[in-house]
Amino acid sequence: MRALLDGVKSGRVAEDEAVAALSELPFQDLGFAKVDHHRALRKGFPEVVFGQGKTPEQIAGLAVALLEKSDRLLVTRASAGAFKAVLARASDAKYDPVARTIVVNRRPVRPVPGVVVVCAGTSDLPVACEAAVTAEIMGCSVERVADAGVAGLHRLLSGMPVIERAKVVVAVAGMEGALPSVLGGLVKVPVIAVPTSIGYGASFGGLAALLAMLNSCAPGVGVVNIDNGFGAGYLAAMIVKGA
Amino acid sequence: MRALLDGVKSGRVAEDEAVAALSELPFQDLGFAKVDHHRALRKGFPEVVFGQGKTPEQIAGLAVALLEKSDRLLVTRASAGAFKAVLARASDAKYDPVARTIVVNRRPVRPVPGVVVVCAGTSDLPVACEAAVTAEIMGCSVERVADAGVAGLHRLLSGMPVIERAKVVVAVAGMEGALPSVLGGLVKVPVIAVPTSIGYGASFGGLAALLAMLNSCAPGVGVVNIDNGFGAGYLAAMIVKGA
Amino acid sequence: MRALLDGVKSGRVAEDEAVAALSELPFQDLGFAKVDHHRALRKGFPEVVFGQGKTPEQIAGLAVALLEKSDRLLVTRASAGAFKAVLARASDAKYDPVARTIVVNRRPVRPVPGVVVVCAGTSDLPVACEAAVTAEIMGCSVERVADAGVAGLHRLLSGMPVIERAKVVVAVAGMEGALPSVLGGLVKVPVIAVPTSIGYGASFGGLAALLAMLNSCAPGVGVVNIDNGFGAGYLAAMIVKGA
Amino acid sequence: MRALLDGVKSGRVAEDEAVAALSELPFQDLGFAKVDHHRALRKGFPEVVFGQGKTPEQIAGLAVALLEKSDRLLVTRASAGAFKAVLARASDAKYDPVARTIVVNRRPVRPVPGVVVVCAGTSDLPVACEAAVTAEIMGCSVERVADAGVAGLHRLLSGMPVIERAKVVVAVAGMEGALPSVLGGLVKVPVIAVPTSIGYGASFGGLAALLAMLNSCAPGVGVVNIDNGFGAGYLAAMIVKGA
Amino acid sequence: MRALLDGVKSGRVAEDEAVAALSELPFQDLGFAKVDHHRALRKGFPEVVFGQGKTPEQIAGLAVALLEKSDRLLVTRASAGAFKAVLARASDAKYDPVARTIVVNRRPVRPVPGVVVVCAGTSDLPVACEAAVTAEIMGCSVERVADAGVAGLHRLLSGMPVIERAKVVVAVAGMEGALPSVLGGLVKVPVIAVPTSIGYGASFGGLAALLAMLNSCAPGVGVVNIDNGFGAGYLAAMIVKGA
Amino acid sequence: MRALLDGVKSGRVAEDEAVAALSELPFQDLGFAKVDHHRALRKGFPEVVFGQGKTPEQIAGLAVALLEKSDRLLVTRASAGAFKAVLARASDAKYDPVARTIVVNRRPVRPVPGVVVVCAGTSDLPVACEAAVTAEIMGCSVERVADAGVAGLHRLLSGMPVIERAKVVVAVAGMEGALPSVLGGLVKVPVIAVPTSIGYGASFGGLAALLAMLNSCAPGVGVVNIDNGFGAGYLAAMIVKGA
Amino acid sequence: MRALLDGVKSGRVAEDEAVAALSELPFQDLGFAKVDHHRALRKGFPEVVFGQGKTPEQIAGLAVALLEKSDRLLVTRASAGAFKAVLARASDAKYDPVARTIVVNRRPVRPVPGVVVVCAGTSDLPVACEAAVTAEIMGCSVERVADAGVAGLHRLLSGMPVIERAKVVVAVAGMEGALPSVLGGLVKVPVIAVPTSIGYGASFGGLAALLAMLNSCAPGVGVVNIDNGFGAGYLAAMIVKGA
Amino acid sequence: MRALLDGVKSGRVAEDEAVAALSELPFQDLGFAKVDHHRALRKGFPEVVFGQGKTPEQIAGLAVALLEKSDRLLVTRASAGAFKAVLARASDAKYDPVARTIVVNRRPVRPVPGVVVVCAGTSDLPVACEAAVTAEIMGCSVERVADAGVAGLHRLLSGMPVIERAKVVVAVAGMEGALPSVLGGLVKVPVIAVPTSIGYGASFGGLAALLAMLNSCAPGVGVVNIDNGFGAGYLAAMIVKGA
Repeated sequence: MRALLDGVKSGRVAEDEAVAALSELPFQDLGFAKVDHHRALRKGFPEVVFGQGKTPEQIAGLAVALLEKSDRLLVTRASAGAFKAVLARASDAKYDPVARTIVVNRRPVRPVPGVVVVCAGTSDLPVACEAAVTAEIMGCSVERVADAGVAGLHRLLSGMPVIERAKVVVAVAGMEGALPSVLGGLVKVPVIAVPTSIGYGASFGGLAALLAMLNSCAPGVGVVNIDNGFGAGYLAAMIVKGA
Repeated sequence: MRALLDGVKSGRVAEDEAVAALSELPFQDLGFAKVDHHRALRKGFPEVVFGQGKTPEQIAGLAVALLEKSDRLLVTRASAGAFKAVLARASDAKYDPVARTIVVNRRPVRPVPGVVVVCAGTSDLPVACEAAVTAEIMGCSVERVADAGVAGLHRLLSGMPVIERAKVVVAVAGMEGALPSVLGGLVKVPVIAVPTSIGYGASFGGLAALLAMLNSCAPGVGVVNIDNGFGAGYLAAMIVKGA
Repeated sequence: MRALLDGVKSGRVAEDEAVAALSELPFQDLGFAKVDHHRALRKGFPEVVFGQGKTPEQIAGLAVALLEKSDRLLVTRASAGAFKAVLARASDAKYDPVARTIVVNRRPVRPVPGVVVVCAGTSDLPVACEAAVTAEIMGCSVERVADAGVAGLHRLLSGMPVIERAKVVVAVAGMEGALPSVLGGLVKVPVIAVPTSIGYGASFGGLAALLAMLNSCAPGVGVVNIDNGFGAGYLAAMIVKGA
Repeated sequence: MRALLDGVKSGRVAEDEAVAALSELPFQDLGFAKVDHHRALRKGFPEVVFGQGKTPEQIAGLAVALLEKSDRLLVTRASAGAFKAVLARASDAKYDPVARTIVVNRRPVRPVPGVVVVCAGTSDLPVACEAAVTAEIMGCSVERVADAGVAGLHRLLSGMPVIERAKVVVAVAGMEGALPSVLGGLVKVPVIAVPTSIGYGASFGGLAALLAMLNSCAPGVGVVNIDNGFGAGYLAAMIVKGA
Repeated sequence: MRALLDGVKSGRVAEDEAVAALSELPFQDLGFAKVDHHRALRKGFPEVVFGQGKTPEQIAGLAVALLEKSDRLLVTRASAGAFKAVLARASDAKYDPVARTIVVNRRPVRPVPGVVVVCAGTSDLPVACEAAVTAEIMGCSVERVADAGVAGLHRLLSGMPVIERAKVVVAVAGMEGALPSVLGGLVKVPVIAVPTSIGYGASFGGLAALLAMLNSCAPGVGVVNIDNGFGAGYLAAMIVKGA
Repeated sequence: MRALLDGVKSGRVAEDEAVAALSELPFQDLGFAKVDHHRALRKGFPEVVFGQGKTPEQIAGLAVALLEKSDRLLVTRASAGAFKAVLARASDAKYDPVARTIVVNRRPVRPVPGVVVVCAGTSDLPVACEAAVTAEIMGCSVERVADAGVAGLHRLLSGMPVIERAKVVVAVAGMEGALPSVLGGLVKVPVIAVPTSIGYGASFGGLAALLAMLNSCAPGVGVVNIDNGFGAGYLAAMIVKGA
Repeated sequence: MRALLDGVKSGRVAEDEAVAALSELPFQDLGFAKVDHHRALRKGFPEVVFGQGKTPEQIAGLAVALLEKSDRLLVTRASAGAFKAVLARASDAKYDPVARTIVVNRRPVRPVPGVVVVCAGTSDLPVACEAAVTAEIMGCSVERVADAGVAGLHRLLSGMPVIERAKVVVAVAGMEGALPSVLGGLVKVPVIAVPTSIGYGASFGGLAALLAMLNSCAPGVGVVNIDNGFGAGYLAAMIVKGA
Repeated sequence: MRALLDGVKSGRVAEDEAVAALSELPFQDLGFAKVDHHRALRKGFPEVVFGQGKTPEQIAGLAVALLEKSDRLLVTRASAGAFKAVLARASDAKYDPVARTIVVNRRPVRPVPGVVVVCAGTSDLPVACEAAVTAEIMGCSVERVADAGVAGLHRLLSGMPVIERAKVVVAVAGMEGALPSVLGGLVKVPVIAVPTSIGYGASFGGLAALLAMLNSCAPGVGVVNIDNGFGAGYLAAMIVKGA
């Protein structure tokens, strides 16, 4: 912020000119997105590409532009086709077909431990994996506990040795969304709750799980948007790295 | 049903006359409610009085009318004032201030065991007690497990010896409404889920708990209306008595 | 539950090791689902496969894994293609194209009578049939009454001789969802209400029927999720078998 | 309409002047309501006063103003206090405490028969009576069938001799709102469905009943707003008088 | 109804047998729908086929079955393919591509006048035409006023000469659904309001228009379900024929 | 904005110190509100006090603080008691009991004409008057047209001579909220639509009117929050003064 | 309006005849839309074609009909195919693939400056461009600021030199819809807020952004329907041209 | 968890007996709440009392019971009357009338810095203060920035020197709920978003702010329930103490 204010102070004339030039252009001449190379400075992580609704070509173009300035890249909700397009231009890109993520990491660091991602049902895996991959690219090591729905309590309890090692737990669940409440009562660390759109009928696209998580009777639970594995992994990484 | 059809067959003329006479009267001359002495024949239990929104005098009047034909009575959502009015006319009436019920039982029977009512939080007790009292007046013995919210799993597990004796479990919870899902995974008997309006904010008057229960990932769960302890106790009694 | 606690007591070391090994694997290496061979012990019925959103190959794989340990199998929301894939590996599988179910039953038992499934309109048949098939594979014999919507009361009444034999009634209806209320007033046994998504406009995907059923003025009604024929059949079987 | 257009044609100058004068006045100088003596010409019935939210004095003032030009008056949602205030200035006013209506009828006409108001539960009576009183003051005779909820089908059937005389049926119900669907299947005449706010929990203030009625599987059903007994009675009177 | 009760009285034995036989059959053996030849007796019009979601073959099969007993037929929401299939078996069938209706009328009667269908926008035409065709096959002559949205008041006013001939007005509108309110203030006859799903964004599939129509400040308005042109035409025909 | 950036540039040190001091204080030591004397510079109008939920003493305190720096004041949703408290400290304050506003204007300017506020029903007057008073204190003259609901089209048309003088129309309506659509089709100037919470049942606290206005088929309509007369008057004044 | 009334006065006979002839025609004979050549007189701009849901042929037909009477045309939500069809018949048509608009402007005028369109994210560009193109065809020059989401405040601030030139700001944003609130605090001119359907999960198709904008804590904000770029551009042009 | 399992292992017999005894008691004999002295072991903080809906006597009783085992206590949503009752039995209790909290802290520890609570409007102060008090009793020092709504960006920016010291930011806002999005773009630490019910009309009791926060375009934001200051403070303390 101070950098921003300083920039305004020292460089106003140039800025005005740039802004004026910029604003004369119609939107559609800007290309499909402004790539923001400065975000890493502010938020500790370079621009992430939300792949849904973008063509493979658009995604590959954005990826190349970002990799010119950064040694890490994350594309979420990416199809296999998008991966193919990126791979043609960045041969070290990696694809996770469950998480639907494309990752490039040219600056491996010693990962910070403490993120555990717990997943209620197998249908919730794509969202859980997106959370895990996000935390990993941000520099964390992630442990995972799958198929730990509350209706099979013994499976959840069998995961406790792993869960107890967590500094932050990401709890991913659809349907009735009860997992964060049960976990919140078992651990002493923050729980990030991710409702998923898994379900039908009165699940209303994840609304039931979302409301359940917001009303959790266990304290220490923060909630992100439906299916927002990226947001949960990002927040989890912030917490363990700030710790 | 056959009794109904037979009645129509054999007694039509009289019925027509009665109906004609009846329908000439404006609604407001009918008094505040038609008392239906025949319901016990059809449903196995006499008319129940829903006390909310009725004056103590109305409740007492209905109670007296019902007790002329039946040896049992249940008033739900009854205030202490309503109880006082009923007691003046039926000295054996009993009041449960938590359940807010008035009960008269002049034909004690040997109770059928197997109903267990489990309650997530202390604020859910009025609804849970209404369920328990309802099942009791219908001829069941009821065991109760209180304060067994899913965020305090050890308390719920400590109630398992009782819960395992159930032929049907009534699970009462507000807020995130996760209790029926956890119970549904632990028992082999039907679970009747009762959402309560306990909560605030995004609980939306019990909607969050209701949706969670409808989306339970555990099979064997049936849901009743928000705060409908009576309906849950009634259904539970039907199940264990039919067993 | 006691078995679970005993297991924890006696086998902790091994469990820790297994859990540790397990949790090192990323989710996507687990295959598409953990198959839970112990569920039958807890809930009286082996794992059921929810076919929607799974490929025929995934369904066939899960089916084979389950049939190694169990002599019964139920796949719901299964396409004809999924059936073909299962049939290639389990030649005694049977498909019901209306219910969209795949069933294998290698241990025929003498069925328990008492489940009656009543269906309001012909469009509700898939859900009604799913309920019936589910109760049958769980060991019940099921009677069926079709096209008994409340706007054609004579048809509903003509079904009464069958309905009166029920120990539990499953009432399936879309649109205004009035069937459970009318049935609840005619029978003395539990009614399991299943709203369906049949309708348009202000039906809001079954919400209208769901709300109507939750607000039924007849006691003794428990409600399951929209289109959840499986859940209704499962609960009905629990009730008649527990009886 | 032609009268309106004619008025515009022949009297524009005067109108312009009146409008100009009128629009100079701030709203609050207009008094609490413009009384519209011309509405009877357009709609066949003089202005009706919606009593809710108005003081007894305001209601009495409006009543007097209306009665100067008309020989009929209807005040809906009127308290006993409002009636007292009106009675002091119109000694022939009549109050119906269930319908909460004040009526003055100084031009009794031979009533047109054919309106039947059917009411599901005793709690729905105020709305049903408002409908009946409205149709009566508009010149109809009204027959009434009370306590005819669908969960007590025999009571509804016992009302059929009256209902069969209807040219239009007004069906009033809260909770699950199933009455219009059942009636719609039994009669050959229009059914006006009135949802009421009677219920609790997932009734959501009458929304459940409203949605059920809009989704009625019986044709020939038109729906009015929740608790809008006046609107239903008005529409019913229009239909039988137009017949 | 009396016919029904008589039937039950005189023919019970046969009925029991038929019912017993019927209920032994699984649902899926019943064919895709029970055709109800008796509905015309009760409701004055033979069974209508709701074409949406049915295959051309199913529609043609139902059409043939109905035409064996009736000289009129209406299929709504029918595709051109469905029409082709029906035409092959009923050469006098007629198709209206805007209304998406198939009609057979082998008993032309002198039509009853008085139904006027008013349509707000050109996108609402399919629903408006379905209403008009429905009223016509039920024996009414229908006048139509198109493109009479309230934002173009002069066009609505130019339609007044036609609208003033109405005994009942069907008002069809999407988006803000204001047409019935404006019409209700201009005419002295019942207005049947039909919200359509035309709109986007905060129209929420017709919810905005539906709510507006239910809250109409003009009395004499009854509302049907979103896009339910059939229901509106049916109700309009009932009203003018009963008149 | 430039003033802001300049301020940051030239005065940073002092600001830092002030901020540091400020942030040491707990919230509750700040008094009940920070009064912002600079808002007039940015938005052309001094701070407005939203009176609802504030005590008369709080309102009077805020009023005095504001009047030390400004010669105008507006308090909305003010009770008579609040006015009394303000009057004791500002003897030139004026109260409008319908608009529920307190106004002090010590710098009368020649008002800018062109705002017309049109109101559908008498119950909508408080919101309409709040809009008018707001535009007046911001320096506009306002013309008013009351009781111009769309169901009484002749009254709306009789207001056209006034409405045609508008440079911006504020249209206030509850219930079905159709007024902005009709007005939008009659005038060539912007229409600011204000839904009110007037209505009952399916009005859902103004939601019906809000949705109708957002879906207006007439272009040139902008919508503000339910009952937000202040916002509409403020926006209208901005438009005519910017013109 | 006076023109309308005059028209009614002087030309009634002819009008009646025309109306009578018109109303005899069934809807479907009217063609797919009445083209209204008089709208430009009333609203200052000729009929706009809403392209969504119309075939290229329908669009081209409407375009030709409009261009016979007008020298400007705007088609919104137009596909490339629709453009091709229009181009074949109007060789000076222009297509904007981001805005999805077809424009013909045969009467270039000196544009009125003062409209600034600000866009939160690149996914919101189609709606923002539709707003810009609409204001341009109505005779305004438009400046644009892209990718100015509130989470990247420095980018928004860098656009301030342009934004400060605005007489009206159109603020387009999806997701949390915060842009209009931030802008409303920075500028002294009206802000037209356009929520977009960009987002997922709890965005509910733009509902989140819509509610946020309606609840803006900044005064001077008017809201249009979700994705309604056309409406916002139209209203903005009205404001600056009326100024 | 291990402690729990160990407890089950070693002490089962006694537990069974206790449970059996316990479960025989009806709910209402348990007193108004079970006090859980073990929660501090599991979650790092003793039981908190949610004061809303409890009588002063109940709150004082719970407070005494808790203070027998713990040296800290927090009561939220406490009235002045509740404080008086607690003070009579714990003379070192302190009350914060804005936060509505009662606090006893008999074990002052050196507070952990890093929590900053930012509040959008003065009406949001009670929720913000509840968050701050909660974090303080859990052992944190808290800095506060008040009245930092996004429509007054300069005030928010003036708070940046404090905000930049945060390890976690709690952002409290009602109405459009934009504060967390703006903050999320300015800081590199986790943001806990708390929607409040402040607002009216389309705020729908805080729903607008809740949805906005869930849809925040800034990553690193976790959301708690509407008005849940306690939950936000609890989660913030967990994060900084775990750091």
